[in-house]
Amino acid sequence: MPTFNAPVRDLQFVLHDLLKVSEQDIPGFADLDRDFTAAVLDESAKVARDVLAPLNLSGDQEGCRLENGVVRTPKGFKAAFETMKEGGWTAVDCDPEFGGQGLPYVMHTAAQESFVAANMAFNMYQGLTHGAYSAIRFHGTDAQKATYLPKLVTCEWTGTMNLTEPHCGTDLGLMRTRAEPQADGSYQITGQKIFISAGDHDLAENIIHLVLARVTGAPEGIKGISLFIVPKFDIKPDGSLGDRNGVSVGKIEEKMGIHGNATCVLNYDGAKGYLLGELHKGMRAMFTMMNEARLGVGLQGYAQAEAAYQNARAYAQERLQGRDVTGAKFPDQPADPLIVHPDIRRNLMDQKSFIEGARALTFWGAYLIDRAHKCDDTAADGLISLLIPVIKGFQTDKGFEMTVAAQQVYGGHGYIEEQGMSQFARDARIAMIYEGANGVQALDLVGRKLAQDGGKHVMAFFDMVKGLIKDNEGDEALRRDFLDPLKAASKDMQAAAMYFMQHGVKNPNNALAGSYDFMHLAGHVCMGLMWSRMAIAASEALENGAGDKDFYETKLATGRYYMARHLPATALHLARIQTGADTVMALAAENF
Amino acid sequence: MPTFNAPVRDLQFVLHDLLKVSEQDIPGFADLDRDFTAAVLDESAKVARDVLAPLNLSGDQEGCRLENGVVRTPKGFKAAFETMKEGGWTAVDCDPEFGGQGLPYVMHTAAQESFVAANMAFNMYQGLTHGAYSAIRFHGTDAQKATYLPKLVTCEWTGTMNLTEPHCGTDLGLMRTRAEPQADGSYQITGQKIFISAGDHDLAENIIHLVLARVTGAPEGIKGISLFIVPKFDIKPDGSLGDRNGVSVGKIEEKMGIHGNATCVLNYDGAKGYLLGELHKGMRAMFTMMNEARLGVGLQGYAQAEAAYQNARAYAQERLQGRDVTGAKFPDQPADPLIVHPDIRRNLMDQKSFIEGARALTFWGAYLIDRAHKCDDTAADGLISLLIPVIKGFQTDKGFEMTVAAQQVYGGHGYIEEQGMSQFARDARIAMIYEGANGVQALDLVGRKLAQDGGKHVMAFFDMVKGLIKDNEGDEALRRDFLDPLKAASKDMQAAAMYFMQHGVKNPNNALAGSYDFMHLAGHVCMGLMWSRMAIAASEALENGAGDKDFYETKLATGRYYMARHLPATALHLARIQTGADTVMALAAENF
Repeated sequence: MPTFNAPVRDLQFVLHDLLKVSEQDIPGFADLDRDFTAAVLDESAKVARDVLAPLNLSGDQEGCRLENGVVRTPKGFKAAFETMKEGGWTAVDCDPEFGGQGLPYVMHTAAQESFVAANMAFNMYQGLTHGAYSAIRFHGTDAQKATYLPKLVTCEWTGTMNLTEPHCGTDLGLMRTRAEPQADGSYQITGQKIFISAGDHDLAENIIHLVLARVTGAPEGIKGISLFIVPKFDIKPDGSLGDRNGVSVGKIEEKMGIHGNATCVLNYDGAKGYLLGELHKGMRAMFTMMNEARLGVGLQGYAQAEAAYQNARAYAQERLQGRDVTGAKFPDQPADPLIVHPDIRRNLMDQKSFIEGARALTFWGAYLIDRAHKCDDTAADGLISLLIPVIKGFQTDKGFEMTVAAQQVYGGHGYIEEQGMSQFARDARIAMIYEGANGVQALDLVGRKLAQDGGKHVMAFFDMVKGLIKDNEGDEALRRDFLDPLKAASKDMQAAAMYFMQHGVKNPNNALAGSYDFMHLAGHVCMGLMWSRMAIAASEALENGAGDKDFYETKLATGRYYMARHLPATALHLARIQTGADTVMALAAENF
Repeated sequence: MPTFNAPVRDLQFVLHDLLKVSEQDIPGFADLDRDFTAAVLDESAKVARDVLAPLNLSGDQEGCRLENGVVRTPKGFKAAFETMKEGGWTAVDCDPEFGGQGLPYVMHTAAQESFVAANMAFNMYQGLTHGAYSAIRFHGTDAQKATYLPKLVTCEWTGTMNLTEPHCGTDLGLMRTRAEPQADGSYQITGQKIFISAGDHDLAENIIHLVLARVTGAPEGIKGISLFIVPKFDIKPDGSLGDRNGVSVGKIEEKMGIHGNATCVLNYDGAKGYLLGELHKGMRAMFTMMNEARLGVGLQGYAQAEAAYQNARAYAQERLQGRDVTGAKFPDQPADPLIVHPDIRRNLMDQKSFIEGARALTFWGAYLIDRAHKCDDTAADGLISLLIPVIKGFQTDKGFEMTVAAQQVYGGHGYIEEQGMSQFARDARIAMIYEGANGVQALDLVGRKLAQDGGKHVMAFFDMVKGLIKDNEGDEALRRDFLDPLKAASKDMQAAAMYFMQHGVKNPNNALAGSYDFMHLAGHVCMGLMWSRMAIAASEALENGAGDKDFYETKLATGRYYMARHLPATALHLARIQTGADTVMALAAENF
């Protein structure tokens, strides 16, 4: 059975060597000293290792069951959920006013990584709840906040997001679910929602569904959509649970993965709902949570890769097969371990260098969200808006690819379910799809974010890269191994943006045909930026005579691998982008 | 439920426009005129569409069961297997002396594509049998041939290949299964074999296991391994079935995919076996079948992509979601179909252009095998040896990637098992692993095939590319869209080979660290070569006033897409190769 051990040393490196969190002038950050974060992360690591990881494979194999209209989660999930609640892990960054611990979002993110890596399907129950918490906190009335937030913070109640309907996913303007105003100010919600993660289960006494619907007589399209709170059990004025609401589980979907999480069809049959936020502005309310939600999915991408990598690494170190071509490494054993073989190393280095780069990018993203929210920093807000589709799209594509690569290390054993490597790939696959399919992320990036605020944020990004290079190119080794490749990659990204400007106005398809490549191009540049910053941090630590020399030298070597082997991909993406729409759009639809 | 319709027009294009099979001076090829192959392929298409495809999803969902020591295949498999037998589809290229139809291997390959695409798991029962047929035909005594071949040709009996043991897959020198010589000339086989596809089932009255084992006292390593015939039921002198042999099913593996095929642990407990071929030369006997077996797996790669593509295409044409950014295409409908969106097109074009290129490469490979076997053409034999790891490794990697891409077109629906898109990806995944994991293919290519016969075959390949360019560059459009990109890609491949020569002698890791990239680099060049040849063929057809102008113009447009968007990847692979082993091998094993 696969195991998982949170890479706490690496998490600490990103928080302290890279982001220097405790030195940042952001409310709450001063508390994040090395000892404090180590204590938190050591604890979350234990829960991940001892409580969540052991339920990952069994949760996958058992799955969720619908029994008499109620969803039963896999064996052990209920007790594990209690452990999470007792440890306060559901409340890390929540508002103390409602029972949260009020820690920065970056700290929440660092703790989440271990939970997600250990058991993605399980962790979604609390992940969705966190989303519902945010929506009500930002858009709820005081009364709504008082009613729902304390329970959502503790996960006594959990939350869901209801957007998709059978005929509409990305294009929510086609939505048919209706909300009929009632005399008491509430609404009757009627319609069918699908793909509702954590849509029902036996982990909490109530479930707070957030449902997008169209109020009778509202404008057509997305401008007529409102957001509603629809509790599974209505809440009485004294806060106790009242009647079962008119929402029922149609079925649980049989999926490729995340079997431990119940993906439900929910039927709303005149269910009682309460408007959340402004009438007809449901989409805007949903969008305010989007950065965090999408960053969370980007985290799932590399976190699954991390879990898969740890097991592939162990297998490569233990499994004896073949001989080192430069001479037997263990002549007294019948064969050498897999890890002597260059192509196994290439594969493991691909995984390791991606994961560590993605972690840095994700934590940096979380830090930018903190800065934007806690300091009203519009530059940070603009930058994270730009980066979000990259973090979500690039990291989930590559994360999935890396779980497949890890599975490959196991050879035939990787294809057998009891080894657990298949599950990592099957689970990671969903992250490319939900919370906006990756093609939609690419469209958001190129069609919307690039030009946002007159292109200010992408220019700021390029300036940041330029500044970093300029400030550090005096170091010859750093320049050669990191900054020169970063400069070349950044130039490719600028050339691609320029191409879109010059050719996209004439024909927007020239930009959109290159959007997916641009998302990956930008992903590479972001990774190159993070690896350059990590290399600078590691070099500084070594110069300052840091104790764990091996750790920092490994960090540098891993970064050099990424820069040498992966960053050149930007040229390919640029070449593809510059071919424009002609070959992409050449065929008539019926000639496919 | 997904459907499958064999692309007979495309199959015919490759056989006739590209390979011009009926004009080739190879025994049996003259019969392959357009009408004949169309008749065969129309029939195989019907079986694939009406008999095999409808059992694909149900076979995946039901899987195989072990009941009282016997494997039960999914509902409908037995009847479908009878249909295959009755139609003579198990015997297409088999020797008429043993009841086969004696058609060329390329014809067998063309028919197989439809069966594999329609139901990969099902088709493996006959695929493995074909392998056993080949082994006995090339290495069996006359008596063995007479006993086994007629039954294997008709699939009254099926076959298996037994190589892997729990502790050894790639490194078969570690094998522990023992063969003890008996007084009657037979052997007692004892040991455990795992991952035995079609290892047991209820489709045939007998199963002929081909088993690698070490005769007591044989040399250590792979030089002491022999190949044995171990029938499930012994065969009496009159040909009727005798006693149950000492081989039993330990269990059926729970796998990521190909659930319709029973992957068995087989326990040999003093089972009666008969030496096949020479003592201690079992590996050589296995290797003679390897080209065909690996080409067959390379075919699985793109055939699964073809099946997935057909469904993704239909979904993109039907599913209404969003609007064409250049203006609504169907203003009277609530939204435009997905296929108007440039990124959906990009995705579909990726799939289409890969599949058609891979088909051409595979059929050309089958043609080279025919030429090698039927004309004793050593140049063809050398060339196909070189190409086999590319066909297997590149096509299964990309084939899997394209099934994932097709799944992505479905959005969330692609993750739901009842839609069938997940199955294509899960089934395609195994092709990257079995019959030599793709890392081993890359090693075979760079460590063995490149330098084979003094590098003669790769030089011949480069000369062939050069010749094609020279002969056709007078056509300006052809030169610009196809031959120039091919020339650049081929130069990258030559530069990579040169790098290996210059740096691999000093340190073989410099070559092996780039082996995986070289396999993909070579794959792109092969695809570029095939697309160039297809473009020439399509241009000729258009010049000759061919009837289906649309078909040939679509072919050209698809090729232009591949050349413009995919061929530039060769530069990236070269750049990675030229970084050598340094960054790949930098870490100590314990620092991963």
